[in-house]
Amino acid sequence: MKRATIVGATGFGGLGLIEILLRHPEFSIKQLIARKDVNIPVSNVFPHLKGLCDMRVDPAEKAGFDTDIAFFSTPDRAGMEIIDEYYKRNIPVIDFSGDFRFKTTQEYAAYATNKGIAENHLAPHVLSESVYGLPEKNRALLRTAKVAGNPGCFAITMILGLLPAMDEGIIESDIIICDGKTGVSGAGKNSGEANLYPQRYENISAYREGQHQHLVETENIINAKNNTDKKILFVPQIVPMTRGILVTIYADIKAGFDTKKIMGLYNDYYKGEPFVFITERSPGTADVRGSNRCLIKPIVDPRTGKLIVTAVTDNLVKGQSGNAVQTANIMMGFDETQALNTMALYP
Amino acid sequence: MKRATIVGATGFGGLGLIEILLRHPEFSIKQLIARKDVNIPVSNVFPHLKGLCDMRVDPAEKAGFDTDIAFFSTPDRAGMEIIDEYYKRNIPVIDFSGDFRFKTTQEYAAYATNKGIAENHLAPHVLSESVYGLPEKNRALLRTAKVAGNPGCFAITMILGLLPAMDEGIIESDIIICDGKTGVSGAGKNSGEANLYPQRYENISAYREGQHQHLVETENIINAKNNTDKKILFVPQIVPMTRGILVTIYADIKAGFDTKKIMGLYNDYYKGEPFVFITERSPGTADVRGSNRCLIKPIVDPRTGKLIVTAVTDNLVKGQSGNAVQTANIMMGFDETQALNTMALYP
Amino acid sequence: MKRATIVGATGFGGLGLIEILLRHPEFSIKQLIARKDVNIPVSNVFPHLKGLCDMRVDPAEKAGFDTDIAFFSTPDRAGMEIIDEYYKRNIPVIDFSGDFRFKTTQEYAAYATNKGIAENHLAPHVLSESVYGLPEKNRALLRTAKVAGNPGCFAITMILGLLPAMDEGIIESDIIICDGKTGVSGAGKNSGEANLYPQRYENISAYREGQHQHLVETENIINAKNNTDKKILFVPQIVPMTRGILVTIYADIKAGFDTKKIMGLYNDYYKGEPFVFITERSPGTADVRGSNRCLIKPIVDPRTGKLIVTAVTDNLVKGQSGNAVQTANIMMGFDETQALNTMALYP
Amino acid sequence: MKRATIVGATGFGGLGLIEILLRHPEFSIKQLIARKDVNIPVSNVFPHLKGLCDMRVDPAEKAGFDTDIAFFSTPDRAGMEIIDEYYKRNIPVIDFSGDFRFKTTQEYAAYATNKGIAENHLAPHVLSESVYGLPEKNRALLRTAKVAGNPGCFAITMILGLLPAMDEGIIESDIIICDGKTGVSGAGKNSGEANLYPQRYENISAYREGQHQHLVETENIINAKNNTDKKILFVPQIVPMTRGILVTIYADIKAGFDTKKIMGLYNDYYKGEPFVFITERSPGTADVRGSNRCLIKPIVDPRTGKLIVTAVTDNLVKGQSGNAVQTANIMMGFDETQALNTMALYP
Repeated sequence: MKRATIVGATGFGGLGLIEILLRHPEFSIKQLIARKDVNIPVSNVFPHLKGLCDMRVDPAEKAGFDTDIAFFSTPDRAGMEIIDEYYKRNIPVIDFSGDFRFKTTQEYAAYATNKGIAENHLAPHVLSESVYGLPEKNRALLRTAKVAGNPGCFAITMILGLLPAMDEGIIESDIIICDGKTGVSGAGKNSGEANLYPQRYENISAYREGQHQHLVETENIINAKNNTDKKILFVPQIVPMTRGILVTIYADIKAGFDTKKIMGLYNDYYKGEPFVFITERSPGTADVRGSNRCLIKPIVDPRTGKLIVTAVTDNLVKGQSGNAVQTANIMMGFDETQALNTMALYP
Repeated sequence: MKRATIVGATGFGGLGLIEILLRHPEFSIKQLIARKDVNIPVSNVFPHLKGLCDMRVDPAEKAGFDTDIAFFSTPDRAGMEIIDEYYKRNIPVIDFSGDFRFKTTQEYAAYATNKGIAENHLAPHVLSESVYGLPEKNRALLRTAKVAGNPGCFAITMILGLLPAMDEGIIESDIIICDGKTGVSGAGKNSGEANLYPQRYENISAYREGQHQHLVETENIINAKNNTDKKILFVPQIVPMTRGILVTIYADIKAGFDTKKIMGLYNDYYKGEPFVFITERSPGTADVRGSNRCLIKPIVDPRTGKLIVTAVTDNLVKGQSGNAVQTANIMMGFDETQALNTMALYP
Repeated sequence: MKRATIVGATGFGGLGLIEILLRHPEFSIKQLIARKDVNIPVSNVFPHLKGLCDMRVDPAEKAGFDTDIAFFSTPDRAGMEIIDEYYKRNIPVIDFSGDFRFKTTQEYAAYATNKGIAENHLAPHVLSESVYGLPEKNRALLRTAKVAGNPGCFAITMILGLLPAMDEGIIESDIIICDGKTGVSGAGKNSGEANLYPQRYENISAYREGQHQHLVETENIINAKNNTDKKILFVPQIVPMTRGILVTIYADIKAGFDTKKIMGLYNDYYKGEPFVFITERSPGTADVRGSNRCLIKPIVDPRTGKLIVTAVTDNLVKGQSGNAVQTANIMMGFDETQALNTMALYP
Repeated sequence: MKRATIVGATGFGGLGLIEILLRHPEFSIKQLIARKDVNIPVSNVFPHLKGLCDMRVDPAEKAGFDTDIAFFSTPDRAGMEIIDEYYKRNIPVIDFSGDFRFKTTQEYAAYATNKGIAENHLAPHVLSESVYGLPEKNRALLRTAKVAGNPGCFAITMILGLLPAMDEGIIESDIIICDGKTGVSGAGKNSGEANLYPQRYENISAYREGQHQHLVETENIINAKNNTDKKILFVPQIVPMTRGILVTIYADIKAGFDTKKIMGLYNDYYKGEPFVFITERSPGTADVRGSNRCLIKPIVDPRTGKLIVTAVTDNLVKGQSGNAVQTANIMMGFDETQALNTMALYP
């Protein structure tokens, strides 16, 4: 039984970790740490946890380090401030923000600019050793990683939708269009007036068109294998629902590909992946609600010859805490699917 | 490993059973039976099951009987037509409709009248041996039961909210008011035009005021212990959500009870119950979303002296398939909480 | 053309007034006043107003008094601080808070206690002259009123549902049970974390059981005619929708009343009322979405003999700004229905 | 006062017409015709109409022709069967389906293929005289038109978003990508099991990727002015809401355009249009809920140089009945904005 510490335990990310780790046969939760709502049971913050997890939430200054892994479900720039305490003790860390998704400070600065936060990195020595926490791409590297940067929810969905085509080198466009739709929970547990029920119901709108902070990591990963320089044009949109991401991807591909062939290519690429599935039916976010799955439908439009890929995830599971535990399973040498093979909640 | 057959596998009730039985360590699903969508994998009907349950759905005429238990997740009057095949083979049955919730044909007829269906019962010999499938009341009887009638979703929520006060004999009103609110899924997987998204969003309305079919069983159970004759005045309402029931109960109680005392009484009554919890915070249906829990808040209004009880369940879990598996666990001699201790999906 | 000033123009109440007054043939909006979002066009705050109302929002200190009527769509205790400036100039005022719903400081104090605000009243001389702004009850008084207290949204729905039975003296219970359900917009434009989309979707929960602040005014008005002393036991609940209130009322009535007779009584009582309709069909909040109507269904339950009344309103229209304009129409001597005869937005 | 007949009065389209025509100062409703729910008041079908419109719904065989205009809010192929009765009497007709959106039978056949309906046209002589009912493009032609084909809801939103750029000839891509999102009401009043509340909540999914039936008319109109041959790659998606369409458009444009310049171009193009507005803020469907407006935000992404246009409409108003009345106003010589200048319902 390995001990896990959750820093940032009282947000949606921390809650997702608690839910998964409680049913995990090889992890026990050692400590919950947060900034707000401290010194009370976490089940006071999330009443549905009562009787299932009544651990006290500790303030940051009470953080202990007798743990086997730490999850930082913290906002940007919180993780880089505290990472050294864990790093020097050789405690593996998985960070949920953008702090450790990049190898260089320049990439971090580009991310930070899009996000509108400070651009300097406070732990560049760790940055160079961190691994992007995407099992489908970096499984081998993660086995020995000390620090993993858990992908952004939109990023992971775009990347999984694009990897087979990119890694096979069949995309011809220099610019790939990704049209994203997300539920409101992606904005976190206290995201302000714009996300109140009356403001969000019956409303869909775009934001940060072309400038979302997940662009940098997405371009990094999809271009990695063939050292290409494709750009993503990404427009995110908020939809009146709580969980779920759908990304619709448009790109030119090499001549000779039709839907059957591209389906074959995607199926081959993800063969054996436990959580990525190719589907001939148009996937909906309801198909992955509460689950760690990503469903992908790649087709070639016969009228225009363009590749169209739709990919869905639950932004709080495969887009966040589920993927983090999958990564943790790899880092600790567990079966990668431990505690993650639950089914979507439907309806 | 005991074998379970699900009759009516392609409705929401059948799906709920599949979900729970798949994670159950002592049950394996033996056969799925339905009337529609037959001879295809159940994962064609519910795509989120792909890779988790791809069993073929068999038509009724292919029903085999090499099974250790059968769940009838079927509409009213379907179960009573086929029960004998199971009964004579000594296969325990749990039926989801009103077919086996009563001990007498008269009670069934009263139920049937409210529901607007035929009043004659086709298997009265079984009726007399059936047990109302409410573990919190009939645990001992269920241990040896052959046939259990799984409670209605509204009924179980009203009953759990009322049992402590009724069994302690402290309710004075002859008529107890129950104001019910339910999500739309209670109406099933194909409930018609009135429940389309545009018709249901931003809409709450009452139906069958005072005449809902769950009245008979509710009055039966709450009056059982003290042989009382209290009536329930029940007004159900449909709310724009998918899962969840909230019942608000109003009654006069004996002098001398305040909130503290009634809380104590309810806590004592449900002490040790694995799925019923008393809470001082007003419970919401989000607290039990996807879980087998029932949360209850009993208070005494100081201005009027009335008892107010609010109780919440997920109508598809504790209100349906979760309670059925809990009952099955008892009937088979398993740990009662097997496969049911999962937590609510929040948010 | 009479000039109207809106104080508190940037909340949902102020917005509702702008919407109605813009289509009103006898009112023009003279000034918009608010505390936040000042010195910008109101269409920057509510973009859907662009081109329809681009007036600048003025801060309170720029309030002019060259106006024929003032609507205070302000929080509790804001109106009583500024009323004198209008009162001494003989400018009629309609206030949306609890400030002027009562005739005595004692009643106000009882209201304030339930609401959790200071209990002293700052303008008792005005209080005694104010009229409760319910046209269906106080039409005659409102014709000459200088100050009207616009009813609370739950209060007006309960009162309209109860008035016929109360004024006819046929209710026998000392305690009347009102079970209320409301959409989230009742909590205002910035109501905090509990009302964010992820927290509110798929969730219904009660709050302030038995202690809601609308109790005092409701009891006042329903008891007025026959000088009775009935109490209301009111449990409000929040439902995952934006607009709409449904109140379900339970009471004992005199012998000899059945559904037909009570329907007749209610129809007679509201004969000629332009916005209150009796319906044999169970009314839904969708029937009144965006309209100034109140639909009421009174029945007598044959099993228990109890009166059951369901009543629906749009909490932002008949429950707030629509009723305020109806009252203003009366106070100014206009046709009472001016600008209010629009139909519900359906679906 | 001109008399209007509504054929197909009991669907969402017919209801939208009733709502607008009731407040129209120059139209009176002469007759309501439908196939289902006939010989009863329309307010029995839509209870919120009670007291506002209680006209009887007549079956088709009782259609009279003493009317000044007819709206066919009917499914595909219904209008072409009955058009001659109106055509030979010189009664202007506005049809809501694809029946009269095209000038040639070939175009109709292409539309019909995408829609999966019969390809032969039953009234080709009328087809050649019909005008595509888009005031912003065909205002002059509509003044003398006898038959107008009311645009598809997705089509009108795409077209309005593209016209300025297309008519100015600044789009360079041969293929323009349109990613569409729609509320559920677009599927009509009785759209089947897939659109029940439990199936649609918390769910977004694509359908008919690249093959939606609105493609033909969209390509027709945008290519008309400069006789170009641009293709639209259109992927529609259903979002858990009732009303509203958001289309996100991606295209390459001529060098030298930045956001400021493209905003200027769009503003100039729609100068004077009463219902199309350019906005610097990302528009949401809530901004147009229940209104006849279309809001458009055109920008140029500095990273990729691509044009990104987001456009929103209410699919039931500017996307259907509102646009039809706007067209009718033009055909009858009325002020084009009559009865249409209402504001969005917000929140």
